[in-house]
Amino acid sequence: MNIEGYLKSPTERVDDLLCKGLKIIQDSKSYCFAIDAVLLANFVKAGKKDRIIDLGTGSGVIPILLSAKTEAPEIVGIEVVEEVAERAQRSIMMNNLEVRVKIIDGDLKDAPRIFGRESFSVVVTNPPYMRMNEGKISPNKDIAVARHEVAATLEDVVNAGAGLLTFGGKFYMVYRTWRLSDAIFELKKRSLEPKLLRFIQPRAADPPNLFLLMAQKGGGPGLKMLPPIVIYKDDGSYTEEIHKIYFEDK
Amino acid sequence: MNIEGYLKSPTERVDDLLCKGLKIIQDSKSYCFAIDAVLLANFVKAGKKDRIIDLGTGSGVIPILLSAKTEAPEIVGIEVVEEVAERAQRSIMMNNLEVRVKIIDGDLKDAPRIFGRESFSVVVTNPPYMRMNEGKISPNKDIAVARHEVAATLEDVVNAGAGLLTFGGKFYMVYRTWRLSDAIFELKKRSLEPKLLRFIQPRAADPPNLFLLMAQKGGGPGLKMLPPIVIYKDDGSYTEEIHKIYFEDK
Repeated sequence: MNIEGYLKSPTERVDDLLCKGLKIIQDSKSYCFAIDAVLLANFVKAGKKDRIIDLGTGSGVIPILLSAKTEAPEIVGIEVVEEVAERAQRSIMMNNLEVRVKIIDGDLKDAPRIFGRESFSVVVTNPPYMRMNEGKISPNKDIAVARHEVAATLEDVVNAGAGLLTFGGKFYMVYRTWRLSDAIFELKKRSLEPKLLRFIQPRAADPPNLFLLMAQKGGGPGLKMLPPIVIYKDDGSYTEEIHKIYFEDK
Repeated sequence: MNIEGYLKSPTERVDDLLCKGLKIIQDSKSYCFAIDAVLLANFVKAGKKDRIIDLGTGSGVIPILLSAKTEAPEIVGIEVVEEVAERAQRSIMMNNLEVRVKIIDGDLKDAPRIFGRESFSVVVTNPPYMRMNEGKISPNKDIAVARHEVAATLEDVVNAGAGLLTFGGKFYMVYRTWRLSDAIFELKKRSLEPKLLRFIQPRAADPPNLFLLMAQKGGGPGLKMLPPIVIYKDDGSYTEEIHKIYFEDK
């Protein structure tokens, strides 16, 4: 089937992920992934023995990128909005990734029951950043679920991750700095010890607005920090690091 | 009395704080304050109605700097090592600060009992950074207490601060990033909500190694981040910001 055969509506389009020929279907009326998802996929480390789950996978962009960036033999994405999960499944088929990548239409809160406790060695998540009382909730359901805690809160996501991970397993997230202390608190409460933290700043002189964090189930104390990622140079063009992430994996 | 009259041993010296003529007695055989104490003093905000306590004051450098940088009418420093507290007291007298700054020789764990619960609106602390099982503990008692959790742990310091603060009062700390998640966890457990966070990096391309944090007792959710402080330029000289902090308050 040619690429257009995977599209279902006139507002859908196929975007090139600029990574080993991978492509993704997005709907311009729905939530489209942003740089945070790409940075998270680059932050994750996984090997041949890892089983990965992405909690709230949306378009499936993270599982698709992880199929190229890791050797993990099995990558699962769970997504609660049915039409979003269905679109992600078409992207998986379009990339011929059905053997390694499974998209499940379901609520991430049910994931430990669906897949079994301690059934994954790596959990990945780009959860909605905003509490229900912060900012305007989109009338579009897909966008509302992606941005606000409509379907799952931070606590729900961390709780599901803690249940799904094996001892020593790793929880990777990207999140906004405004909620850094909430994230650390919820993780530590569930014995997911933050081990690696990296901030993302729009420009070198700006405060960070996002962070990448890796927490390990049952990990010992001590947090290692990496140098901040700066997105833009002062002239508005991408920094070398971002350029490399975006354009040098073709 | 001239300045030398305040010195008690041949290893003691008077250092200029480069801030409104303030000076401090330090003993070259003991712990000497570092840039973290100066950055913390610059980070603290306090006004005419604030009562400030510095938990583990050491040489008294933070109360002395806060006497110049804030209008707080009363600033207390508590220090458990008797000879260190006595030396700090001589520095207070040498600067004619006895009316505003009090040095108490005591254990910070007893501070809520000594001063009364909810008796301060601002708590400041530069606690020892290292757990007992991290690094070599100095045979010099002053240095050991300043660097390692010999006399008080992070939990002790946060606990004392939570007891001493009024509702809405502010807890300011400088600490190493290795223990950021411990600090956030201990603060949140005691309803001290992290509200302001600023990282310190040796150079622009380095990971941060220290952070400045302000938590508010009973504060609402949400953490604001400030741009990182970079200490050195690539050529090894101080950045403009550090130059300003160190040399422009004379």
